[in-house]
Amino acid sequence: MTSVEELPARQGRAVRVARGQALQIINTHGTQVVDFWAFKPSDLSIYLSMQHTRAVLSRLTPRVGDVLVDNLREPMLCFETDTSPGVHDTVIPPCDPARYAKLGCPPDHASCADNLHRALAALDLKVAECPASFNLWMNIPVRPSMELEWRETVSKPGDSLVFRALVDCIMVMSACPQDIVCINAGRPVSAHYALLS
Amino acid sequence: MTSVEELPARQGRAVRVARGQALQIINTHGTQVVDFWAFKPSDLSIYLSMQHTRAVLSRLTPRVGDVLVDNLREPMLCFETDTSPGVHDTVIPPCDPARYAKLGCPPDHASCADNLHRALAALDLKVAECPASFNLWMNIPVRPSMELEWRETVSKPGDSLVFRALVDCIMVMSACPQDIVCINAGRPVSAHYALLS
Repeated sequence: MTSVEELPARQGRAVRVARGQALQIINTHGTQVVDFWAFKPSDLSIYLSMQHTRAVLSRLTPRVGDVLVDNLREPMLCFETDTSPGVHDTVIPPCDPARYAKLGCPPDHASCADNLHRALAALDLKVAECPASFNLWMNIPVRPSMELEWRETVSKPGDSLVFRALVDCIMVMSACPQDIVCINAGRPVSAHYALLS
Repeated sequence: MTSVEELPARQGRAVRVARGQALQIINTHGTQVVDFWAFKPSDLSIYLSMQHTRAVLSRLTPRVGDVLVDNLREPMLCFETDTSPGVHDTVIPPCDPARYAKLGCPPDHASCADNLHRALAALDLKVAECPASFNLWMNIPVRPSMELEWRETVSKPGDSLVFRALVDCIMVMSACPQDIVCINAGRPVSAHYALLS
């Protein structure tokens, strides 16, 4: 039986996913952006790379059926299913303490970068730098002028994605705590996830 | 008097640029992509960040007048002049040995990532990982479908850019050695650069 776990609002979680297993990520309320990363447990300096994935796919944003690669350009994940309209982002960095300081927030404001480090620490793991994230459901249209817009998600409550591990992985999720810019409809909420065989 | 130096075809160079000084980069033949990076000499883990610059500008590609930021979202460079049509790229990673291995090239094929490491080594400096580069003159149109195309440059011989240092910097350039994909018109050539007061 598959156990569905909560990804609490404004928090992160890291999950060990063996080769062949998959992680389902559920946008429970439909309005939540989830920042996503993956690392190789045998060498955390090898991680899911958005820039290398863009080059391998010749596309700005992965879609169902795509193989996502690591920073050595090797296959890491298969983007297996997506019940949402497929609007996700790879060009905006995870929010971090510097982002909220510049937005005038208090220094204890949660951030996706801090959530990554805390989620890994819960598995006794540590990385020097927070890599670029795959920003699930984040709606950043690119205008022909190359301008970027910051919009609310276009997903429905209960939409979900599945990433199949092509190698042993540590997958990390952060329920984005952004409550100043409108990307989470102004109200960060929880999401859910399930490890699938 | 300003001294113009050669950036030889398929090679990299690193230059110390003090706060207030600027680096001019010249597309001598018009067809050459130059990968560009900047680092803080006092702490090489702080570097020009394409993803944070995109977020700060809300634009995929910087243009004249923009301030480019580091990975702590602090101002690092001013993009002061650009005589070319302003077609540059921030979404494709620097080419690296893995890229050429997958293209079937011999293992000694030059790459922008290797050029970065060698250029820094010439200043007795070392970084663990090659950051995302600002790919000057690289022509990667983004289609409304989010597909990316790989095209030749649209610059003219002699076009140049100037980056003014807002803090002390080490700026690094690589004359991209890509000779399989058409981005350099099939023939990697030299470029030039000059340190301006």
